[in-house]
This record gives sequence, structure tokens and C-alpha cells, in this order.
Amino acid sequence: MPASRRRTAAEFQGNGSLMPPSAHVIASPRGGGAPNREEHANGGGPALRGAKPRGGGSVFSASKVTGRRRPAGRTPLWRLGIFASLALNLAALALLRHQYMVSYPNHPGVVSPGQQHRACAPQPGTSGAAARAPSTGKPAVTSDSVINLDHGDPTMFEAFWRETGDAAELVIPGWQTMSYFSDVSNVCWFMVPDFDQQVRRLHRTVGNAAVDGYHVLVGTGSTQLLMAALYALSPADAVEPTSVVSTAPYYSWYPAVTDFLRSGLFCWAGDANSFVGDAYIELVCSPNSPDGAIRDAVLGSSGAGKAVHDLAYYWPQYTPITRRADHDIMLFTMSKSTGHAGTRIGWALVKDREVARRMTKFVELNTVSVSKDSQLRAAKVLRAVSDGYDYDGGASASRHRLFDFGRRKMVERWRMLREAAAASGIFSLPEETSGLCNFANETAANNHAFAWLRCDREDVENCAGFLRGHKILTRSGDQFGADPRYVRVSMLDRDDAYDIFIGRLASLK
Amino acid sequence: MPASRRRTAAEFQGNGSLMPPSAHVIASPRGGGAPNREEHANGGGPALRGAKPRGGGSVFSASKVTGRRRPAGRTPLWRLGIFASLALNLAALALLRHQYMVSYPNHPGVVSPGQQHRACAPQPGTSGAAARAPSTGKPAVTSDSVINLDHGDPTMFEAFWRETGDAAELVIPGWQTMSYFSDVSNVCWFMVPDFDQQVRRLHRTVGNAAVDGYHVLVGTGSTQLLMAALYALSPADAVEPTSVVSTAPYYSWYPAVTDFLRSGLFCWAGDANSFVGDAYIELVCSPNSPDGAIRDAVLGSSGAGKAVHDLAYYWPQYTPITRRADHDIMLFTMSKSTGHAGTRIGWALVKDREVARRMTKFVELNTVSVSKDSQLRAAKVLRAVSDGYDYDGGASASRHRLFDFGRRKMVERWRMLREAAAASGIFSLPEETSGLCNFANETAANNHAFAWLRCDREDVENCAGFLRGHKILTRSGDQFGADPRYVRVSMLDRDDAYDIFIGRLASLK
Repeated sequence: MPASRRRTAAEFQGNGSLMPPSAHVIASPRGGGAPNREEHANGGGPALRGAKPRGGGSVFSASKVTGRRRPAGRTPLWRLGIFASLALNLAALALLRHQYMVSYPNHPGVVSPGQQHRACAPQPGTSGAAARAPSTGKPAVTSDSVINLDHGDPTMFEAFWRETGDAAELVIPGWQTMSYFSDVSNVCWFMVPDFDQQVRRLHRTVGNAAVDGYHVLVGTGSTQLLMAALYALSPADAVEPTSVVSTAPYYSWYPAVTDFLRSGLFCWAGDANSFVGDAYIELVCSPNSPDGAIRDAVLGSSGAGKAVHDLAYYWPQYTPITRRADHDIMLFTMSKSTGHAGTRIGWALVKDREVARRMTKFVELNTVSVSKDSQLRAAKVLRAVSDGYDYDGGASASRHRLFDFGRRKMVERWRMLREAAAASGIFSLPEETSGLCNFANETAANNHAFAWLRCDREDVENCAGFLRGHKILTRSGDQFGADPRYVRVSMLDRDDAYDIFIGRLASLK
Repeated sequence: MPASRRRTAAEFQGNGSLMPPSAHVIASPRGGGAPNREEHANGGGPALRGAKPRGGGSVFSASKVTGRRRPAGRTPLWRLGIFASLALNLAALALLRHQYMVSYPNHPGVVSPGQQHRACAPQPGTSGAAARAPSTGKPAVTSDSVINLDHGDPTMFEAFWRETGDAAELVIPGWQTMSYFSDVSNVCWFMVPDFDQQVRRLHRTVGNAAVDGYHVLVGTGSTQLLMAALYALSPADAVEPTSVVSTAPYYSWYPAVTDFLRSGLFCWAGDANSFVGDAYIELVCSPNSPDGAIRDAVLGSSGAGKAVHDLAYYWPQYTPITRRADHDIMLFTMSKSTGHAGTRIGWALVKDREVARRMTKFVELNTVSVSKDSQLRAAKVLRAVSDGYDYDGGASASRHRLFDFGRRKMVERWRMLREAAAASGIFSLPEETSGLCNFANETAANNHAFAWLRCDREDVENCAGFLRGHKILTRSGDQFGADPRYVRVSMLDRDDAYDIFIGRLASLK
């Protein structure tokens, strides 16, 4: 073998399997075991046996002009040593180059469901196989598919995160995150400190909520924290359950989450506009689900009345950031901010320490704590979002700007929707509203995560049923305490599903 | 610099920061950037400038006896090349050795909170920073520490998982696990298919529970699934809440989890032994927490009565596997089987489809679904466990045997505990029991995850208070519906904490 020919990584692997085939998705080269020095030496051996050096231009060629005549058949030991040394060099360089390639793999573009399935078929003993599992179990859509826009499954954001490479990639060694505990000095003792820091950093970056003087609590999604807030705000010794209210149209899950256990502590009492009483918990969602309206509490916090602000959609892709919210309890979720719904992480900003403590107690009794793996993931993702807006140009600054991406998508999708509704002629949508966005420093429209669509045809009293007949699944307005002529339509699904929906909607007469 | 002197990793780092200082705890070398070839060359350069080779015994010494006289002041280019080559060799070997040390770090035992904090301080832009977060936020212990064995924090298992290298390591790309959905064709629509498969595989391997004909459900820990079972088994239209009972001493959280929301569907009714009534849900924990007793239902499933079997400890490290359990509802948890409590994953094996559907509905209303990241992690870990017992010697077989490790630890710890109790003279423990373990094919003792310790001193009525005075935290027997002379003591903490506990216990008189 010519001393100057570099071994390819594949040849090197073939010699001693120093790297498993799947190493390209593994951050750690540990996959097949660290380089074994015996194998390393063997890798150099066979090529040298009896090999004669060849002249050449390389500085590493040992046979360069010496003028000495070598006894036939005898290669001095020191020359063999030199050759061994050179072979070791080349082997080491090949190994290092291979590890460099492992560290910076090329990420594939969109993988088809078929490819995804094959990619995630368990490979016995192969690290990383489970990580290739597809993001979603919903079947791929075709032009004939039923398009399900009932849920706010935020798969629209996948396209953004594919482009970020490994900025939001998480590696968890097998021995990590095993303990229940995270920071026993914190009210929220199971919260990973890095998650706390990234939440605060992001809010400071976006300016959508105050964090100084607030406790950050983590939950298994903001749904769990909603129940935690109800638990914390309901007096344990009350004779009657505390009434839970919200202004119609309210988020369809508020009644369900409040009442599914028929708790003696709190119960659903309907529309805040028609509520009469002194003790209540008002749920204020702003921008609101389903209709995107910007809301304030109607009952306010007075006497025995409390408010919980659900700010799941108060992010620049959906709405102008007009002020830094500073309510007593504010809920946020990864699902709608970054799109990582499957990670099941939400957080609460809570002013009062005792309320924070009771909310933490709820989570403790409900699920003992919150997955550390998910928290680490969320922290990584939030960090990547903030890095995109690190205008100080520090080492962390990146060119991946989530909110820019999200806003462009929402603007485009709402434009398509309004055109389709106009083309159809039988649907109406909320009027477009806008405001000055302090984050983007410009006027921005409200482009909500859901469309509050009304069917104006006289003979259609149940819009959800009408659309279902055209293979479009939505959530009926009556689940939101509103007229069934309305439906809530998710604006967050993938492009292919959304495009099919738009085409069908425009054709309806 | 003598060509034969090996550079230390620290010197090599100083030259071009090829590895960040914290690399020894990062699985991925991506942290500080992969080796840079320009830096690599520079690393070799300075040492060679003008260096003369020295004679020596090494086969790599280029100056070995040649007899030639070199013109004063002139070193032939080819010799310089040889020196460069040798220096490259040494540098490469040092780098590979360093990476070997990264892959198989020496574990320092207890890391001080300060070290932990520095290790996990966010490094802007550094991949893997979040993954360095310590497993636990509990402070390190010293001989003067308060030893907290109140909770069953399973950090004893960390030592096993450190040794498995990357077998249980998980990599999640930024764009994965974003959707709520996993497999919409499954009753449990948010369950990751690989998790389902690994659960079934493990049970078949261990033989501790039947899986054929069962639905597998995933939950945020088995605590959530316990509530889900109560929800599923309680008639929604019942006038009175369904009574929930368990035989004393029962797991201290059963009353708390049942009653903390004052549900109208179910309520705690105490000791099953003294229960009178037709409608009930009996919680059967076997081996039992706190006392390790092997339990059967006392009320059984008849008429309106139902049983839920909590088999959290029915694994070979704690108890002989005497039969393949086949109850209607069986709960398991990662926390006690593999030690991954922070991942928050439990599962249920459920025979009845309607019950499975209602339990799934509970999880949906409670937390929308279960973290996919956690499920992927759990699947990876369970796979690694099963691989250790793949006696077919297939490609997946590994030498890491969790249950062997666990059993050895538990046998040793119980031996130490019995000796300490005997040395003290004022404590008693449950008698040792054993049985034929079908998994290990030998007789095995019960070595429970908790010790049900009784203080026999006449003047000590509250054992937990007595031990607290000696800086040992335990959980009082009265929380388990038993005499406060008993305490439950965790057997699952790290070696250092356990050793201190043993030493103190033996000294108590």
C-alpha cells in the first residue's frame, strides 16, 4: 500500500469495527467502543509486511534520496519503525477525520413516512434507533384523505426545526436524569435549573411576560398546570367547590379538565359574563382559543375572586407583543411556542410563593414530578430559540429565528384562508386586527393558531357536521360554549394537509 | 521537547482547545468542536522546530545507529519529516487516549454540588450542555449529613448505568417527537410503538407478567396510571364515590393520591381487612410497600368489586419471580425496575379494552398525553435491559445484566442492614423469606426496596422521630396505616449515603 494513500473510514471500520454503522446519528463516538489500541496497531500491521517504500513527493516518504545501498532482503529495523510510525499517523488521521464526520453529520431533508418507518425499525444493539422514530403517528395525507384539523397538533414547526441541525438536539447518557430530585432548594424541587434559566431568558428576549419576582414552575404541559392552579386557588376547607368560569367562546377543554374528576374543590360554572358570585377562578386565555381575541379578565381579582391567565398563544408568530404581561399566574406551553407538543412541557410564572408551593404539591401528587428528560429537551429547544435573537453577536448567536419563521407561515396561511373563504362565499372569519409589536418593532396583525370559522349558509346549522361530510374534521363551536355554526380549525398542521384543506374549502358552495 | 515525551491531554488542550475542559462528562465530543486539522498540525509544529533527535531505546527513535556523519547545522528534510511524523503519532495517540478517557470516564464518586453546578452551567452554543445536568439535586453526603431515606429515590442504579456506556444513551434530533400523536390505531394513541414492544419483550424475558391479550398503556409514572385506574373503574353515574381500599400497612401515597382532589368518583376507605361493602377498588401492592410482603387481594374481584395490582417491585432484584402474573390491571414503573425515576414513565397491562380506553382518556384529560421523549428514553433503557439477557447470543446481546447487579446489591445491603440491626440491638426487621425464582432458576430471598424497620425500645413510640434525632430521615409507619414504631427506610440510595446510615444505625442503643 502506498504510504501516502489515506485509508478511508470504511476501510478502517472493516479492519476492526471501531465505529458502528449507525454512528452518524450518534453524537458520541462511543458507539462501538473507544478506539482500541491493539486494534489500532493491527490496523497498521498488515500493510507493512514486506512493503517497500516508494519514492514520492510526500515529506513522509522515508525512501527519499540517501544514496545508500541496502543489503538485498534486509530492511533495517529503524526503517520498519518509520513505516510503522507513518502507518500509525495515517490511521490516526483517518480515525480523527471519521470522528469529525460523526460530529457534524449531514441532516436529511424531509423523510417520507415509509422511510421513517424503516428508519425506526428497531435495530438490535444499535444506538440511536429509537431516536429515529417519526414525530407523528398520524398517517400521511393524500388528496382523498380526511383532513383532521380538530386538534392543534403543531407539526407546522417541524420544517423549522429540521433546518436548525443539531442546535436543538439532545443527548442523554444512560445514567442521567435518574433521580426524582432536581434542585431541592427551589419551591419547584423537580425543575431542572437550566430549564428555569432558559424560560426566563426567553421571556426577557421576547418581552411578553415579566419574570423578575416570579417563581417558575414546570408541568407536564400547561394542562397539568391549569389543574394545579385550580387546586392551589381553591380553599381546601370550603364547603362548596369554587366556581371556575371563562368568557365564551372559551377553550373547549376548560370545562372537561375542571370537571372530569368531579372534584369537591372546584367545578365548572360556565360563562364568566353571566356569572354571579363572590368566589370564583376566572380563566383568561389571550389570545383566546378558539377565536384569537385579545382578552382581559371580566371579573378581575377582587375579594375571593382569582384569575389565571393562559398565555399559550402570546408569542410573536401569532400576535403583536404589545406589553410585558405581569399577571399573578401566567401559563405557557412548548406546544404552541416552539411546536414541541410531544415533549409535554409547560410552565407557569407565579407571583405568590404559597400559590407556587401548592401548585407544586399538585404536580407531586399527580405525577410525582415532571420528566427530567423532557425538561432537558425543552431547555435545549428554548435555548436555540433565544440564540436566534442574540443580537449581541455572541458565540451563541444563530441564524435560526423561530418567530420570524412562524410569523411568515401564519401570515401566509391566513392570507390563503381568507382567499379561500372569499372564493367559497359561504364562510366568514373574524376581522383582521393588528397592533404595534414591541418585539418586531413594527405593526403586526393577529394571525391566530386557530381559525374561528363560521358557516353562513342558512341551511347549515352544524358547521362541523357539514365540513365532516367533506372530509374536513374540525371542532364544533358548541364545545366552546358558542353557536354550532362556528368551528375551530387548526392552522398549525403540515403544509400538505393545510393545502388540501384550503383547496376543499374554496370549492364549497 | 524530546520527541519521545508524550504530551498530556492538558497540554494538548492548551494548544488549541480541541476539547473543552468539561469534555470528560460529555458523551459527545461535539461540545467544543471536533478536532480541527489545522490545529492538529499546529500542535505538531512548535515542538519540531530545530529539535534534534535523541538516541534512545524506542523503535521510533530516528537517530539509531547509522554511522553517518551529518553536516554540522543541517538536518536533512527527510529526517525532519520523520520527526514530524513521530510527533504527529504521539499527538494523535494522546488525542485518542484522551477521547478514550472521555468515553470511559473514571467516575469520581460523589460530585460536590459546586462541581455539579459548574458542570451544568449553560455553555452558550455548546451542544450537550443541557445533557450534562446532574442526575440529582440532592446535596452530596458527608459523615455529618442528614441522611434522607424517606423517598425511594433509586440512585443506587446509577452505578450500573454508568457502566453500560451508550447502550441506554438517547439522541433526539430537534425536529422529532413534536406531534401529540404516536399511533392513532392504538387504544393508547400517544404511546410510542417501540416502547410498547420493549415492555412486552421485557416481560417475556423476565416472565413476571403475561402480555399476550393485554393492552399496554403508558403513563407519566405509575402514579398517574393508578389515578387513571381509579377513574376507569369508578362508575361515572354512581351516586356515591367508589371506595378505595388496601390492606395495611399500605403504600402511604394511596390515600393521598385518591383523595387530594376530593373526587366525587372515588374516595379512600382505608384498610381492606376491615372494609364492608359491595363496591370497591382494592389496591394490591406485591411485593408490598412498605414491608415487602407478598400479597394477594383480600376482597378479590367479585360483583362490583375490582382489584388493581401494583407490581412496581415484582422484579428479580427484589423478589423471586414465582409466577407469571395475569391480573386484570397490573402497574409497573421505570423508577423501581431500572432506576430511571426522573424519566417519569410507568405502564399498565390491561385486559379489558373499555377499561384501557377510559384509562387512556384520563391521561388525555390530565396531561393530554405522555412525553414522547421520555417514552423513547424508556424504550432505549428497557431494550438495554433485555439485551443483557439475550442468551441467543444475537447481535443485541450484551454483558450488562441489570437484575444480576440489582440482586447482588440488594443481597449485600440487606446483609449489612441485618448485621447493623443486630449490632444495635434495638431494631427488628421482617423475617427473611425466599422462594424459587423462575427467572434465575434458583432459590432467592426477598430483598425489598424498602426496609420495614421497627424500633423495639420501650421508650420509643415514634421511631421516625427517634431516628430524625440521629439525622436519619425515614417515613413513619403511621403514614402507612401502621404503628409509628415502624418506619420505612429506602434501600435504594447511593452507596455513600447507605453506608453512613448503616454505620449510624449500628451505633444506636
